[in-house]
Amino acid sequence: MTQLKVLAFDIFGTVVDWHGSIAREFDDIHPDITNGITGAQFAVAWRDGYKPAMQRVMSGELGWTLIDDLHRMILEDILQRFGITGLNEIQKGHLNKVWHRLDAWPDSVAGLTRLKSKYTICTLSNGNIGLLTNMAKRAGLPWDCILSAEVFQKYKPDPATYLGVAKIFAIAPEEVMLVAAHQDDLNAAHKSGLNTAYVERPLEFGAARIKDVSPHPDNTFHATNILALAEMLGC
Amino acid sequence: MTQLKVLAFDIFGTVVDWHGSIAREFDDIHPDITNGITGAQFAVAWRDGYKPAMQRVMSGELGWTLIDDLHRMILEDILQRFGITGLNEIQKGHLNKVWHRLDAWPDSVAGLTRLKSKYTICTLSNGNIGLLTNMAKRAGLPWDCILSAEVFQKYKPDPATYLGVAKIFAIAPEEVMLVAAHQDDLNAAHKSGLNTAYVERPLEFGAARIKDVSPHPDNTFHATNILALAEMLGC
Repeated sequence: MTQLKVLAFDIFGTVVDWHGSIAREFDDIHPDITNGITGAQFAVAWRDGYKPAMQRVMSGELGWTLIDDLHRMILEDILQRFGITGLNEIQKGHLNKVWHRLDAWPDSVAGLTRLKSKYTICTLSNGNIGLLTNMAKRAGLPWDCILSAEVFQKYKPDPATYLGVAKIFAIAPEEVMLVAAHQDDLNAAHKSGLNTAYVERPLEFGAARIKDVSPHPDNTFHATNILALAEMLGC
Repeated sequence: MTQLKVLAFDIFGTVVDWHGSIAREFDDIHPDITNGITGAQFAVAWRDGYKPAMQRVMSGELGWTLIDDLHRMILEDILQRFGITGLNEIQKGHLNKVWHRLDAWPDSVAGLTRLKSKYTICTLSNGNIGLLTNMAKRAGLPWDCILSAEVFQKYKPDPATYLGVAKIFAIAPEEVMLVAAHQDDLNAAHKSGLNTAYVERPLEFGAARIKDVSPHPDNTFHATNILALAEMLGC
């Protein structure tokens, strides 16, 4: 195997627990406001709006739009759908930024710290740079570098994002490995010639929607979590 | 004063000692090859080629070109000018990457670490992202985020770079402070509404060309080094 140099990480669901973090924050809002909706329902509905919103950018219907702005569009939509009307502008702005305040999975910081001793570790997320930086600072994620769709002005799974990592470090695609909990992301990276590592996150969508985390033969590695990946890579 | 949130650092000369680092590496090359040229001469000649090369990009004579490639063009030019002909392709490629291996000034890591406890600290350099990441990893520079002209596809002093930092973090220009050892960089940032901190680096060009480091009234802060700046900012 070619020597790996850079590990690029998907973020939402792979490194941080968006479902649990959003559910917890939403459940802290006063019940008079939340209209009987649970945090778990709210989190899943918000995330479910993500791919259709992204699709509107990729199809050209929307111009280049940051995730912060896409999240806000989806938020307005689900608040209306759930009949939640008691949030003012400041509260909505604050809630939208919950994506900057997502908690890491318990193994992430320790696993990344070990991987960083041997590899360059970076983000490769559709999240915007400001969001990823604020998240890393709060959660203690020790990135060497924050890369985002914002740098390439293309969203994953556009090949420009995966190949962009190799280009930035002036290395071959196979010297980069994408680490993700989503097989579609890994498939696209594999097609661009990157190595791939699948990380199991069965609870990504909460306990009510357990995710299939079976191994896919195309992946270079399959790990139960980031600490286990560090172990497999001898870090 | 508005609350500062993000400190953006110029790199070459401000955080790292390009002159000393390049001079040392060049002086380690066998004297049969270096043709009587000293490391100090070589370092200054290389850096002197920087602004004219950048100017060729800014004028549109050259398309968008990464610093790694500009450094290589200047390197070819000065090797020829100094009559240095004994380096092969691999050696030239390695020498060109000395810009990824620059040592930090003695106060930089400690100063940045203290500033990071209170502010988001990022690079804002004309150096490319790969160069800045490799440099940070080797020298232990604890950036929250690596920003570069490469992200904005404009070189400093284009206002798009200074305002780009504010835009990335969705904050006002005056909530960003540029920290640099170069008054022209600070002047341009000031014009875009950023706060500015001058850092004294009298030895930037070596002991043979001591730099004037007198205070300029437009700067928000004037510090002898980055540790002193941390002290002034109460970190």
